[in-house]
Amino acid sequence: MFAKVLVANRGEIAVRIIRSLKELGIKSVAIYSTADRESLHVQLADEAVCVGTARPQDSYLNMQNILAAAVGTGAEAIHPGFGFLSENSRFVEMCEACGVTFIGPKSQTIDLMGNKANARMQMQANGVPVIPGSEGFIADVQEAQTVAQKVGFPVLLKAAAGGGGKGIRRVNNAQELGQAFEEARREAQNAFGDNRMYLEKIMENVKHIEVQIFRDQAGHTVYFPERDCSVQRSKQKMIEESPCSIITPAQRQELGQIALRAANAIDYLNTGTIEFLMDQDHHFYFMEMNTRIQVEHTVTEMVTGIDLVEAQLKVAAGEMLPFSQDDIKANGYAIECRINAEDPAHNFLPSVGKVKYLYFPVGNLGMRIDSDLYSGVEIPPYYDSMIAKVIALGHDRREAIEKVKRLLNEMVIMGITTNQAIHLDILQTKTFLHDQVTTDYLEKKFLPQWKEGVASATV
Amino acid sequence: MFAKVLVANRGEIAVRIIRSLKELGIKSVAIYSTADRESLHVQLADEAVCVGTARPQDSYLNMQNILAAAVGTGAEAIHPGFGFLSENSRFVEMCEACGVTFIGPKSQTIDLMGNKANARMQMQANGVPVIPGSEGFIADVQEAQTVAQKVGFPVLLKAAAGGGGKGIRRVNNAQELGQAFEEARREAQNAFGDNRMYLEKIMENVKHIEVQIFRDQAGHTVYFPERDCSVQRSKQKMIEESPCSIITPAQRQELGQIALRAANAIDYLNTGTIEFLMDQDHHFYFMEMNTRIQVEHTVTEMVTGIDLVEAQLKVAAGEMLPFSQDDIKANGYAIECRINAEDPAHNFLPSVGKVKYLYFPVGNLGMRIDSDLYSGVEIPPYYDSMIAKVIALGHDRREAIEKVKRLLNEMVIMGITTNQAIHLDILQTKTFLHDQVTTDYLEKKFLPQWKEGVASATV
Repeated sequence: MFAKVLVANRGEIAVRIIRSLKELGIKSVAIYSTADRESLHVQLADEAVCVGTARPQDSYLNMQNILAAAVGTGAEAIHPGFGFLSENSRFVEMCEACGVTFIGPKSQTIDLMGNKANARMQMQANGVPVIPGSEGFIADVQEAQTVAQKVGFPVLLKAAAGGGGKGIRRVNNAQELGQAFEEARREAQNAFGDNRMYLEKIMENVKHIEVQIFRDQAGHTVYFPERDCSVQRSKQKMIEESPCSIITPAQRQELGQIALRAANAIDYLNTGTIEFLMDQDHHFYFMEMNTRIQVEHTVTEMVTGIDLVEAQLKVAAGEMLPFSQDDIKANGYAIECRINAEDPAHNFLPSVGKVKYLYFPVGNLGMRIDSDLYSGVEIPPYYDSMIAKVIALGHDRREAIEKVKRLLNEMVIMGITTNQAIHLDILQTKTFLHDQVTTDYLEKKFLPQWKEGVASATV
Repeated sequence: MFAKVLVANRGEIAVRIIRSLKELGIKSVAIYSTADRESLHVQLADEAVCVGTARPQDSYLNMQNILAAAVGTGAEAIHPGFGFLSENSRFVEMCEACGVTFIGPKSQTIDLMGNKANARMQMQANGVPVIPGSEGFIADVQEAQTVAQKVGFPVLLKAAAGGGGKGIRRVNNAQELGQAFEEARREAQNAFGDNRMYLEKIMENVKHIEVQIFRDQAGHTVYFPERDCSVQRSKQKMIEESPCSIITPAQRQELGQIALRAANAIDYLNTGTIEFLMDQDHHFYFMEMNTRIQVEHTVTEMVTGIDLVEAQLKVAAGEMLPFSQDDIKANGYAIECRINAEDPAHNFLPSVGKVKYLYFPVGNLGMRIDSDLYSGVEIPPYYDSMIAKVIALGHDRREAIEKVKRLLNEMVIMGITTNQAIHLDILQTKTFLHDQVTTDYLEKKFLPQWKEGVASATV
């Protein structure tokens, strides 16, 4: 096992990883920007290196400085957390070149899954169901028209090399297609130097269902009970659960087998998550793969009792997976609410400032709050607004909901504005209680009523 | 299930019970003394009734006022927690007379187990091994001399009706016996109006091992993995673990069968704990039974994933036990440190005052802190000094120790003095790490060295 690991991140995930390192007796190195001098992850780590100024590009995305910090402190490995450099294949290659272990998959895997068109083709070739659309790239408007007619409008035109919303167009009908195709292609050419396009049906009334997998160097592969992350706003997950209460054991197994096939097909290393859409008939369609630990890994940890960051470290150190498929069981039901420093009443505008009073209502069985907050900490304006994850485990979904409500009701964060209260409103809606939330629910149904002050329980 | 329950306690156990009530959708009524107006349990409960002034006799032991509060608020049941009225059979009878369910065993059971001589005889009659000593009462000095010679000195002379240290004498040799016997008998007669005596060998180099049992009205009985509570100071437990790492599965099962036999023999209702001494050969000797939930029930909850307070409520409401023996497994290893407001450097003198800053390092898997503290709370001088329980679950004992050390290292409580640091010293001793702590370890070995500043790791 490693003797010293650098954590190339900040916020609650850096704190969470450093704590696992401590529990395993591994020395930890934090990195920080000048805006994060007083941050909890800096205080907790055995060593801390300032890698740049507040702007992410200068610090948490500053590959040279981060690698220099790792080499300089003698860290044998880097845990990237999520976001920042966690899916940057160039950084992975630089780590390899410096003899520092990157805790995650190989750079080729990150590249393969990072290119959405390639990922789609790779999955399709291995019998993984994908969202209806083109097979491979689309040559011209004619072909786009044929495929769109076949799968049905609305469709999404996407640049193969896409990212950051460039080269992407929603097309509602045949009339719009021609112009949209040419525009998107031109945009893609300009942005990525690659004008290859593909097309997918826009699926409605679907749940976001994802399956985390783990694979070691010897090829042992396991999957975890699925997570339902359908409560989303602006494509950002707000509430995550595991397992999904409306998926049958047979469907769970089917989904698991698909995930295993996908992981083996790309010779995956360490942990990753395959994201699917699930339609009303419970058919699954591959969307994309995240080649890193995710925010919501915590619900899986709670429901299975397995420490996924500990397993990441072990597998990265060349050890065998410390569990087999038979060890992985959902012991009840876990639910997580992401607490963001933002103001729901003002279009979720980020909130920054000093936390003047803090009360985390821990205690009792099956409760967990992962956070980098402490009383007196200053929340800087430069980074992601997530400040805490509030997680509860119950025997069944109803009990998990009651428990997470208990935490949300008791938690006190003063000095900044958060989305704490709106979570409670969502948790009591009929749609949520009946587990019928789909990915468009929050924006199409809940928020319009909520903004008008209509009792949210009616939707 | 009950619609409303009164919690006849204060501090962390009141908070812990009220939280379970919330999670189950049951309305909660807190009681409080005038010294506890601002206490967390008062703030969390749906209703709160002041039952008297600060002195325990006037408030938390004030049976009339507490019952009046229950009847007045329409509470159908009373959870007594531990301490205070939890083992007071008269209070149980008063509850019954008022038609309020006492969440615990019947009053006769409390009486039977409360009289240590009767409990011993009852257990012996049912094939439960007891500490070597007299069979039944001792008629005179002659008989005391015979029994003491047989079991070997030192012995303890105890008044059958004993309590509060009255009528109890340690006897080191035959010469001391005559005078001690007469003195103790006179003291017992004066204190209890009952001069019956019994005698037990004083066992040395023993572990305190206890087994929690649960029994419903239909007679379903289960036992939980044992707890090792050998880290004690002045007969007060400081650290508790479950299971005990040096007990074999066969011994565990044997101990469990003894506990089941004991529970069934006295037609026990709800949960209770049978305390044993374990000698170097791993023989078990009945010491006493606690007819209530205990402080350390939390390690059992962590290691089994079973909510014991929830089960107490269900069984008290007449439901069947919500689990069977097969459902009860030790999933790893749990350890708990009791945090007291006291000053180890000044003979553990209680510390009172205002908590000026508080940081509870929650987060990550298998962590739990049960506490009634919040930043700004005033700790009154009238009650027990325990202010928090810090609990960790690991795959094995080593990991549980590392995790609880992580919590102790990160936790910040400012404004009062606590025993937080001495826990870390105990946790790193060889004796503790090798799981060789016996009940006299702290006072005979650790504390003498610790007071002189000798590195505690040497013992």
